[in-house]
Amino acid sequence: GLIVAMEDYHPADMADVFEQMPRQTFNTAVKLLDDMLPGDTIAELSEDLRIDALNALSDKVVADVLGELDSDDAALLASDLEDDRQERVFEQINATDRAAIETSLNFDEETAGRLMQRDFVAAPEFWTVGQAIDHMRSTEDLPEPFFEVYLVDPGFRFVGAVPLSVLICAPRETLLSDLGVDISAAVKPDMDQEEVAYIFQQYNLASVPVLDEAGRLTGMITVDDMVDVIHQENKEDMLALSGVRDGGSYQSVWDAVQSRAPWLGVNLFTAFIVSGAISIFEDTLTEIIALAVLMPVVAALGGNAGSQALAVTVRAIAERDMQGARAGRAVRREFLTAMFNGVVFSVGVGLIALVWFKDPQLSGVISVAMFSTFIWAGVSGVLVPIGLEKLGADPAVASSVFVLTSVDIVAFSSFLGLATAVLM
Amino acid sequence: GLIVAMEDYHPADMADVFEQMPRQTFNTAVKLLDDMLPGDTIAELSEDLRIDALNALSDKVVADVLGELDSDDAALLASDLEDDRQERVFEQINATDRAAIETSLNFDEETAGRLMQRDFVAAPEFWTVGQAIDHMRSTEDLPEPFFEVYLVDPGFRFVGAVPLSVLICAPRETLLSDLGVDISAAVKPDMDQEEVAYIFQQYNLASVPVLDEAGRLTGMITVDDMVDVIHQENKEDMLALSGVRDGGSYQSVWDAVQSRAPWLGVNLFTAFIVSGAISIFEDTLTEIIALAVLMPVVAALGGNAGSQALAVTVRAIAERDMQGARAGRAVRREFLTAMFNGVVFSVGVGLIALVWFKDPQLSGVISVAMFSTFIWAGVSGVLVPIGLEKLGADPAVASSVFVLTSVDIVAFSSFLGLATAVLM
Ligand SMILES: [Mg+2]
Ligand SMILES: [Mg+2]
Ligand SMILES: [Mg+2]
Ligand SMILES: [Mg+2]
Ligand SMILES: [Mg+2]
Ligand SMILES: [Mg+2]
Ligand SMILES: [Mg+2]
Ligand SMILES: [Mg+2]
Ligand SMILES: [Mg+2]
Ligand SMILES: [Mg+2]
Ligand SMILES: [Mg+2]
Ligand SMILES: [Mg+2]
Ligand SMILES: [Mg+2]
Repeated sequence: GLIVAMEDYHPADMADVFEQMPRQTFNTAVKLLDDMLPGDTIAELSEDLRIDALNALSDKVVADVLGELDSDDAALLASDLEDDRQERVFEQINATDRAAIETSLNFDEETAGRLMQRDFVAAPEFWTVGQAIDHMRSTEDLPEPFFEVYLVDPGFRFVGAVPLSVLICAPRETLLSDLGVDISAAVKPDMDQEEVAYIFQQYNLASVPVLDEAGRLTGMITVDDMVDVIHQENKEDMLALSGVRDGGSYQSVWDAVQSRAPWLGVNLFTAFIVSGAISIFEDTLTEIIALAVLMPVVAALGGNAGSQALAVTVRAIAERDMQGARAGRAVRREFLTAMFNGVVFSVGVGLIALVWFKDPQLSGVISVAMFSTFIWAGVSGVLVPIGLEKLGADPAVASSVFVLTSVDIVAFSSFLGLATAVLM
Repeated sequence: GLIVAMEDYHPADMADVFEQMPRQTFNTAVKLLDDMLPGDTIAELSEDLRIDALNALSDKVVADVLGELDSDDAALLASDLEDDRQERVFEQINATDRAAIETSLNFDEETAGRLMQRDFVAAPEFWTVGQAIDHMRSTEDLPEPFFEVYLVDPGFRFVGAVPLSVLICAPRETLLSDLGVDISAAVKPDMDQEEVAYIFQQYNLASVPVLDEAGRLTGMITVDDMVDVIHQENKEDMLALSGVRDGGSYQSVWDAVQSRAPWLGVNLFTAFIVSGAISIFEDTLTEIIALAVLMPVVAALGGNAGSQALAVTVRAIAERDMQGARAGRAVRREFLTAMFNGVVFSVGVGLIALVWFKDPQLSGVISVAMFSTFIWAGVSGVLVPIGLEKLGADPAVASSVFVLTSVDIVAFSSFLGLATAVLM
């Protein structure tokens, strides 16, 4: 049943079906299917299941799968293999496919070199449209899909690209060099995938050529793979902001624990630092117990305002909306927003406290503390990520701890400090 | 200088240059450039500047720009115009372009109908490759870019698509119907853009046909526009999780205030509910002031664990990784993760408290409270978003308030309640 079903399913849907299975069933299914499990379905599986599948299959079957896939997907699968197994598998792949995979694996993960496929269509710029079309018609094993023909000079240096939609509409005798769009968007193999994704988005690309140091064409990255990268990078940032390291799609409890424990560990210490700040005011707290009841309000609202400024800034940095004059404008906007929300919510907090405790002085103290906390939250929420990014750190990963800890300290010590000064 | 520069720049880069300008300078620049400001640069501007630009230009110039753009970008710009101005501008556009724009505008924002362009290439399925190519060669004003030729039956019903990379390699006499990939991925005009984006990602598409109720071809959505949608939807989710409503790229303080005040307003009340929970234990707090010093630790770590579970779950729902058996596995994983991290960090918190206050009973109380809070944070962090999604609410927007408030209440009342029972 499974084998028949697979023919009607898109590989991505088939992968989803597999992902629904319990891990044990999945492994059994893979062993049963053996060489009938399509390579493109394996490539669509989540990382954990991909590794399981490769482990369940024989070297021979894995070698066949690698040979049959485009080199970018083949390199992805090959990188999942243990070193010695990789060697054994590579021995059973033909030299061309093997060289293509090994070239990709020479580049770091999450770089253009690792994402590129070595299968692309290139033509000398002095060819005519007719020559190019005849060449493609007679070539087997073209990449699927491709969107542009890349033009090269005799040294195989990239000189431009012709979109298929332009090529197909041009008269056969036109020179390719007369059609070539001068693509400023070519990438180096060591470029980070995040940078590549930005280039695709900015220039609305369908594919981008990857060039070596000498400008020679070495690969092609297609937009469907960039869509996955964009998802992956966005996920990474979103989870990092909430203190989850490594956006891997974990199937196991142990993966989940490992991805969350570091930030909880850091937070264990920062939370006690905040406690230390509170303990300075023990005497005041003993005297006026309302302070202990109200202090979480200041911290909660301040923490919120800080998270908001932080999320907006981290996102804007990721979208490159924080460069040049725009950074200055953002800081100014956050400051004014904090001023405005600060006034509104300080008055709100003060009024509720007044109704509850009927103590105008206490109400004044919490209002002023709330306002200072808002300003601090807004300003640190925008300056910390911008500063970390300038220092070369990832603002999504590192900002939360600074901003949220400092907001807590400002909240508690301004509230309790002011209370000590005014009420004691 | 600006005009010369514009010719060398990609429209997206040119838009970035404009976005660096102060608002006033931008408006002056637009007025000066007038009909020399390219339409595709306007389409790449952020929403605020786009509206400014359209307001600064005359009806005639706007009409020319709309006529020159692909219908999806034209509809975007047209939707920025006030109703009566839209009518005046439409009167100056030719009937075909106007009909295309009006068709798009008939569909809601953020739907396939609004995103589609009415410019696409369709061919009868009984044509040969040669006929199709000759037709394209003789047609002016083809969409740029396009990646597939859509096949239609005599009733203009969509029957399949031929990727250009397949078309160009096929012999001229081949029938298109023999090449057509049977695309299961066609969309209805009222489909939400998030759904469309999912289809592009799942099936690695370059474009998708938009079909009306009768299955007739009415438009095409291309991947470059989906890349923008994916960014927009991811941004929306990430900001919503941090309590920022509406992911618009605000330029003004007022926009920023409006996008953040609602969640701060809700938080103003939930924070006082939490305060109310604390106030139940006033007597205990007066007696043992160490509780006031330590209680933020329980809330901070619990809040963190809750945010982590929440971010992971919301993201997984967005990626459709929470369907069927996978939801059950995720709940189980969160529970076990919370158990594990709960044990580790409860012991950690207990030990630090013991070293600090040298009170084994207090240390025991904070450990048990911390553990309960971890379990609650993990379980509510996964169940609340899944539940909200089942109820049809957006889990990214609505979950934080439930999870974070309830975690605070569990943290404070388990800690202070246990302390009252054990220490008093
Ligand atoms: Mg999937
Ligand atoms: Mg091969
Ligand atoms: Mg774009
Ligand atoms: Mg690929
Ligand atoms: Mg990255
Ligand atoms: Mg990143
Ligand atoms: Mg831009
Ligand atoms: Mg036109
Ligand atoms: Mg995909
Ligand atoms: Mg494409
Ligand atoms: Mg478009
Ligand atoms: Mg949406
Ligand atoms: Mg959404």
